[in-house]
Amino acid sequence: MQRVVVLGSTGSIGCQTLDIVRAHSERLRVVAMSAGSNVDLFARQVAEFQPQRIAIADTEAGMRFRDAHPELWSRCTGTGAEAVAELAAYPADIVVNALLGYAGLRPTLAALQTGTDVALANKESMVVAGELVREAARATGARVLPVDSEHSAIHQCLRAGQHHEVRRLVLTASGGPFRTQSRAAMQDITPAQALRHPTWSMGAKITIDSATLMNKGFEVLEARWLFDVDFDKIDIVVHPESIVHSLVEFEDGSMIAQLGATDMRLPIWYALHAAERPAADFARLDLAALGALHFEPLDRERFPCVDLAVRAGKRGGMFACILNAANEVAVAAFLDSRLRFVEIPELLGKVLDQAEHDPGLTSALTLETLQRADAWGRDAASHWVQQGCSAGGP
Amino acid sequence: MQRVVVLGSTGSIGCQTLDIVRAHSERLRVVAMSAGSNVDLFARQVAEFQPQRIAIADTEAGMRFRDAHPELWSRCTGTGAEAVAELAAYPADIVVNALLGYAGLRPTLAALQTGTDVALANKESMVVAGELVREAARATGARVLPVDSEHSAIHQCLRAGQHHEVRRLVLTASGGPFRTQSRAAMQDITPAQALRHPTWSMGAKITIDSATLMNKGFEVLEARWLFDVDFDKIDIVVHPESIVHSLVEFEDGSMIAQLGATDMRLPIWYALHAAERPAADFARLDLAALGALHFEPLDRERFPCVDLAVRAGKRGGMFACILNAANEVAVAAFLDSRLRFVEIPELLGKVLDQAEHDPGLTSALTLETLQRADAWGRDAASHWVQQGCSAGGP
Repeated sequence: MQRVVVLGSTGSIGCQTLDIVRAHSERLRVVAMSAGSNVDLFARQVAEFQPQRIAIADTEAGMRFRDAHPELWSRCTGTGAEAVAELAAYPADIVVNALLGYAGLRPTLAALQTGTDVALANKESMVVAGELVREAARATGARVLPVDSEHSAIHQCLRAGQHHEVRRLVLTASGGPFRTQSRAAMQDITPAQALRHPTWSMGAKITIDSATLMNKGFEVLEARWLFDVDFDKIDIVVHPESIVHSLVEFEDGSMIAQLGATDMRLPIWYALHAAERPAADFARLDLAALGALHFEPLDRERFPCVDLAVRAGKRGGMFACILNAANEVAVAAFLDSRLRFVEIPELLGKVLDQAEHDPGLTSALTLETLQRADAWGRDAASHWVQQGCSAGGP
Repeated sequence: MQRVVVLGSTGSIGCQTLDIVRAHSERLRVVAMSAGSNVDLFARQVAEFQPQRIAIADTEAGMRFRDAHPELWSRCTGTGAEAVAELAAYPADIVVNALLGYAGLRPTLAALQTGTDVALANKESMVVAGELVREAARATGARVLPVDSEHSAIHQCLRAGQHHEVRRLVLTASGGPFRTQSRAAMQDITPAQALRHPTWSMGAKITIDSATLMNKGFEVLEARWLFDVDFDKIDIVVHPESIVHSLVEFEDGSMIAQLGATDMRLPIWYALHAAERPAADFARLDLAALGALHFEPLDRERFPCVDLAVRAGKRGGMFACILNAANEVAVAAFLDSRLRFVEIPELLGKVLDQAEHDPGLTSALTLETLQRADAWGRDAASHWVQQGCSAGGP
């Protein structure tokens, strides 16, 4: 019986994790879970899965939960970020971290420091603090099992060789809704257009990141830290069908690919079982019915966010956090029509330029410098939004 | 330094193996080698690679070699099949068995019985006697490393999971030159048409087997014994580009594929190093430049040889040997215009029907029953060729 902690149980990955637990109660049991503010759904989940401990990140929502569900409240260890991080250290076989944003980092570290494997859906943990996460895992031997299709694929493909035999990782990218758009036509992209994603249905922020391909840039950062592979050994290929979830090329020239239906339950299942593969009845892939799989090069000029992410990643330290924070501000401004689509990478380039000339940003990465980097990135991005990027840039 | 025995050094796989050794003399050394009758080329190879021992399968050719190259003759341990089998037991790290036909079986067994890994390009070893080969390997722990693109791919993909987690193996097939031919048009296929293969350049027998897809049926048999997977878990998908060399589907629904350039040096290299992956500069795969990979179902009605092979394999014992022998006769008759293309599977079906009704063919597989099965298959097939399959069948 695999004891599972689910952090962020009311989000998309959290709900899918619980769907899996529901269907496989013979092998999976939820021992602890947390939610943010959707306490109505959370109460139903707690009543169904009967975890021993719960926590609620949003304190005000926690109070509503207490008043509405006194019979469940005794399980609650507290409200706020601290309580969620403590839950990550609850005795378990695996912690599913499906939290959003920086809030995911401390629970990731807490679980790893306890020696518990983490099924990681929280991107920020690896994007902004991959080095810290890797150190925490190394110290106890706990593993980070990626819960997204690309990195789960890489994790699986890497098993076909040894680490020193890896020539490069190849992340596949659907290419987003503007894959075939000309540079000229991209000038006028509206938020509504950018919110239509061809393959996956996701939240607004991540959907915009998929349209700018910043999400792919972030995935390069994640891959670099998850798999301890240099940036120069991480490539991207555009693959509109999203069937080949990623590949690894080995030093002998052989490429290993992982393919699967576009169903997040596959990587969740693989991570939940720490890379074991019990039988599951998720959608199966019928290659003959698919007909064809297409591949094309990534146009790094039309999608400069990828190189911006790599630039920040190579710089190291606080820079990925600065870029991530600035990107959040830029995406929000784009969704508010205060910034044009093509100005997102322009703005981020300016923020990085500025950061590289600031001697105060050369500190090593810690939880403290991370907070400083986040604030710095948001301030710088807000400044550039106001400075008139929305008027066409300087 | 990997000590290599090369059996069949003057054939295509033998020559490519020596090309690899030549380019990587820092890690590979030929300690013994054998050839059949092409003693001129063999003499040049022996002079270049300076193996400690040699053998020549064709005794008459061996005498020519002795007279022409007295300076090399002292290395020769003998001529004939026995001498070649003895060479397979010469102290080495790996035996590359690139022999053609049944002649390859005894050296495969001899190497495995000695505890030496075998890089196996000889198809007959696994097709007709997979069970014997597997037993020999199991007894000493020596490994059989496949030297063909499909099984090398499966070997690599299997590393991404455990044996009990395998749902099915999926062999890819180029589909041969008649992939898109209608059933009616297939009635009039000439030997010249059948000898044109879209992807690989091979000998006449194997090229016809690729056109009838009997080679794919044989590959199912090989896969069954190489990887200890039931026939019902081995599928085939047609993939005209021959870039995805094969796939494994695991119980969780994940598929792992191996991709590579169509270059036999890749699987040879992988097998030579017993599944290690030292750096090599073989042709690299550029997915983006490829554009698209296509897949379609196998039409088992137009290509009945696949099911004939599975039928013989499921029957077990002497039946795969009978089918293989009958197929050799049928292909030769087709090349001689004594049998039509579509009559090859018709004839083989008749041979299997007949064999299933012969109580003398139910013996377990041994080297002796194998010889009997071979003779029986050839006789039966010759009978049916003469009986007038060439006149349209009974």
